[in-house]
Amino acid sequence: MSRWQPNARERLEQAAMELYGERGFEQTTVAAIAERAGLTERTFFRHYADKREVLFSGSVALQDLFTGALAGAPDTAAPIDAMAAALDTVGEFFRDRRPYALRRQAVVTSNPNLRERELIKLASLSAALAAALHDRGVREPAASLVAEAGIAVFKIAFERWLDDPDERELTYFVRESLVELRAATAAG
Amino acid sequence: MSRWQPNARERLEQAAMELYGERGFEQTTVAAIAERAGLTERTFFRHYADKREVLFSGSVALQDLFTGALAGAPDTAAPIDAMAAALDTVGEFFRDRRPYALRRQAVVTSNPNLRERELIKLASLSAALAAALHDRGVREPAASLVAEAGIAVFKIAFERWLDDPDERELTYFVRESLVELRAATAAG
Repeated sequence: MSRWQPNARERLEQAAMELYGERGFEQTTVAAIAERAGLTERTFFRHYADKREVLFSGSVALQDLFTGALAGAPDTAAPIDAMAAALDTVGEFFRDRRPYALRRQAVVTSNPNLRERELIKLASLSAALAAALHDRGVREPAASLVAEAGIAVFKIAFERWLDDPDERELTYFVRESLVELRAATAAG
Repeated sequence: MSRWQPNARERLEQAAMELYGERGFEQTTVAAIAERAGLTERTFFRHYADKREVLFSGSVALQDLFTGALAGAPDTAAPIDAMAAALDTVGEFFRDRRPYALRRQAVVTSNPNLRERELIKLASLSAALAAALHDRGVREPAASLVAEAGIAVFKIAFERWLDDPDERELTYFVRESLVELRAATAAG
């Protein structure tokens, strides 16, 4: 069937994001998403488990990219330098995705259940980063601390990126936040 | 009525923790908690909104203690030093609470909804710490980054404290994690 439905997944995502913005997440049904996309509900459920997954399916790709970049840093790189390289890679990934990220953020922040889901995804990502640092030979508690620091930098930089009226790139903000974190922990 | 029910809140908490340990959180009803405590359901609901709140009512006290300690650090203290002082205060708070914390952790980690609630409470705590740092004149993104660093140190130290066969104090582990975080971010 799928050759008759080119880009079904993308069309469903586009339709879902439009409807979440127009009607709100709670008020949008899978039936309405499928109809807007010109597809069937059955096709929707071949691509997504539920309407929430449309917003969170990208987190697997983000986690793979982030942990892969950590693993790919030079063996000689200190943990924080491997994390800095991985944050740069993640920043590049979002280069052309600001419009989508803004729309997604508006949906997620307007719904407590979606905000909780976002926290859970970040906690999973942090655990995956700590595991990738273990694989690099970093021991505890340093691995978990550097993983949490990386998540903090990513989260805070991401918010600043979306709020920036000058639309500077995410990479600018992850570097800014990492420099600020290092300065703050070095001071005193 | 309350003069006939001395320590009702403590008796309810004790009964709840016993039952959560014996039967599991899901299988425990408010009626069973009240019965075990020798009190009525009505008395339970005067003290707790639901059976989940028994596990999380302490988070308000923790947040007040943590933010108060940050606010009370000398004006001249660097943000990270104010955070270090606050973490010491929090460590002291848990000095005699390891048995309770171990029982609570066993309940929370065994239930996905409770683990999510714990993440939400930590996110709220982080926001409160960032606000306390703003009040100290710390700007963004440093305030949010130091708040997240403090939460990371607290969370990781807390887990290490509960896992420690030598039963060293929480203060030992918060200092250890803070030193490790500072060393990791200074390196490279």
